[in-house]
Amino acid sequence: MKACIIIVGDEILIGQVTDTNSGWIAQQLFSIGISVVSIMTVSDKLDDIQDALRKATSCADIILMTGGLGPTKDDITKIALADFLGVGMYFDTAVYDRIKTMFAKLNRTLSPHHHNQCNMPEGVELIHNSMGTAPGMLFRKDDNIIISMPGVPFEMKAIMNKYVVSMLQGMTKQHLFHYTINTACTGETIIENLISAIVDSMPSHISVAYLPAIGEVKLRLTGQGMDYDLLKSEIMAFAGKITDRLGNIVYGFNDTNLETALMHLCINKKIKVTTAESCTGGSVAARIVSISGSSDYFKGSIVAYSNEIKHRILHVGNDTLEQYGAVSERTVTEMVDGALDGLQADVAVAISGIAGPGGGTPEKPVGTIWICAGNKSQKDTFLLKSGKNRQLNIQAATQYALNMLRLFIIKNIV
Amino acid sequence: MKACIIIVGDEILIGQVTDTNSGWIAQQLFSIGISVVSIMTVSDKLDDIQDALRKATSCADIILMTGGLGPTKDDITKIALADFLGVGMYFDTAVYDRIKTMFAKLNRTLSPHHHNQCNMPEGVELIHNSMGTAPGMLFRKDDNIIISMPGVPFEMKAIMNKYVVSMLQGMTKQHLFHYTINTACTGETIIENLISAIVDSMPSHISVAYLPAIGEVKLRLTGQGMDYDLLKSEIMAFAGKITDRLGNIVYGFNDTNLETALMHLCINKKIKVTTAESCTGGSVAARIVSISGSSDYFKGSIVAYSNEIKHRILHVGNDTLEQYGAVSERTVTEMVDGALDGLQADVAVAISGIAGPGGGTPEKPVGTIWICAGNKSQKDTFLLKSGKNRQLNIQAATQYALNMLRLFIIKNIV
Repeated sequence: MKACIIIVGDEILIGQVTDTNSGWIAQQLFSIGISVVSIMTVSDKLDDIQDALRKATSCADIILMTGGLGPTKDDITKIALADFLGVGMYFDTAVYDRIKTMFAKLNRTLSPHHHNQCNMPEGVELIHNSMGTAPGMLFRKDDNIIISMPGVPFEMKAIMNKYVVSMLQGMTKQHLFHYTINTACTGETIIENLISAIVDSMPSHISVAYLPAIGEVKLRLTGQGMDYDLLKSEIMAFAGKITDRLGNIVYGFNDTNLETALMHLCINKKIKVTTAESCTGGSVAARIVSISGSSDYFKGSIVAYSNEIKHRILHVGNDTLEQYGAVSERTVTEMVDGALDGLQADVAVAISGIAGPGGGTPEKPVGTIWICAGNKSQKDTFLLKSGKNRQLNIQAATQYALNMLRLFIIKNIV
Repeated sequence: MKACIIIVGDEILIGQVTDTNSGWIAQQLFSIGISVVSIMTVSDKLDDIQDALRKATSCADIILMTGGLGPTKDDITKIALADFLGVGMYFDTAVYDRIKTMFAKLNRTLSPHHHNQCNMPEGVELIHNSMGTAPGMLFRKDDNIIISMPGVPFEMKAIMNKYVVSMLQGMTKQHLFHYTINTACTGETIIENLISAIVDSMPSHISVAYLPAIGEVKLRLTGQGMDYDLLKSEIMAFAGKITDRLGNIVYGFNDTNLETALMHLCINKKIKVTTAESCTGGSVAARIVSISGSSDYFKGSIVAYSNEIKHRILHVGNDTLEQYGAVSERTVTEMVDGALDGLQADVAVAISGIAGPGGGTPEKPVGTIWICAGNKSQKDTFLLKSGKNRQLNIQAATQYALNMLRLFIIKNIV
């Protein structure tokens, strides 16, 4: 079964409102094995909505629409649907009575716009909306099912969760299974070369997609088949082979991000972590703290954005700063020691670099970033050569720092 | 002129990656008076991409595509484009040489996949991509212009900002003028009431949009007309009235964000700033450091995520922590003093709160966040009552902390 999502609304086409409905609906459909073949965003114009319906019904079995069901005059999804289906409109007294009762409770009076909201295309199957006045609508045309829902996200989600998802689940026969392998700080092409023999041995109903981000590549394995258990075991076997091949490049699976993987590792090994940050300015600490439960392993951090603080709080030697500079292997090594002492942690990571756009020299151009992860007895250092964009340099340094912490702990802490 | 946006990628159709490209591109086009008639998201399949191109060229003059230009084998936008345009592919040696040079600098070697990246549809006009290996591509077919860009947001944005927007702007005739007034930490309805008389006096060709985000509302004034200078002076006069009415609620204009406004203020007043953060975990410092030039006023920060660090590094009294708790007005006040002493700054802000989802009590539910901004002689404190979502609580606390710093400095530092 294939689905198409239609989002109706001028406000999205001009970029004033960000559409989050289509992504959420796509996730729900994906989780029950329905593949979305297309997402279309169209204006509040009659012609555009009907045109989208024509395209959607020609390529999908199920059409899910959001938007254009409210009482204001730009909401014309219903009229477009009635025209498209070749039916007339009728006044639904049950819908009217419900709105009247809701408004009486809120001491509000009905406007003529709310009367409009009770006009329905003939042949509609109404779907209860527990969160608002506009009900969801279901239509059957030939072999297609068209479901129209309000654009307000929490109303749409209530209708999806209570009715639509379970109804669609009952209709699907084909199963989909996905499994995502998350890797850090290794290029897409290196990964592809490492696992090419495994990927080439996959049957045609299983595919791999590479999803790259800053300092990260996610490998998504997708399979389709009639027997869910068989499909799952096939994909998990390939995922196992890929994970074995990639080793420590893999930090987690599916929705696990790097900071969550780090947290579980540290809590399991009962160690306390701290950071000493210069060019990342607290971004490493902020990503650690973004995960609930991080207080069990994270004590705090020193953001040393000036040489004075690097010396006074982290005890980096003035001779080190003078001889090697703030952006040097020696400085980040001493920053780790200073953070371990000052915050009494087991493992620390330190970052010092030139985020740019200013501050570069021929020897140390913008994007030169030193990172050190270690404890009192052992330290790993790494020179990250990033680019010219300040935000990307900070993001990349943050990602590499988290990953160096992870690798140091895996290798050195029992 | 009408535009259509095509987003290519299975990862979006299954809801794994949220598409932010289409909304951003729509905003840019809107700002230069080009209306987007449709946004389509399609899979990485050849047929689906070609079908989208057929639909798009039938309803729009300009087609902007993102996604599917990377070196791995699931990226087939180029092949789809060549087929659609009825042209062959050629190997572009200039693209190859550029990638080779880039990789040589990074000490990386080219894989066969990077060779694929140099295959281009014939007739392409290449657009320089300063942020990555895959160039943008422009094609002219009949009266249509098709522009294909990488799906990685920062690469797409660089191509749009440097080439595409100005090229398209040159093609439009009607003038648009936009001016945005940025406000912090005041509700949309309060602002709406304050400026309603001014907004009601505006002519019909000028409109105001309210763009709310966490702890922030942007007011975007938009006007359309044939005479650019007249339009601009009209809008600037209304913007002046609104800014006078809102006073210190306004922190900046157009692309100036709160951390940039804070930086200019501090550098002008020649003061050094520091932060002491608990629940925000370094997010305030990270936002400060995200702006180039922040080292001129920002010395560093203490992230004190445990009571031990609050006491030992920031010298918050153990009696304070015991009697009032870590989340209290007294604690954040002492954190400010500790940060001022420890980092020898002129002004500090401190944040301590319950970000959730755990840790709430009946007296201090999740979302209870104390903030203090001040210097040695004066301090402002504020109790932010945020919600239940951890990420939103951290974002809101960060925004309020930056704004409290700004307001404290405006009021108290000459």
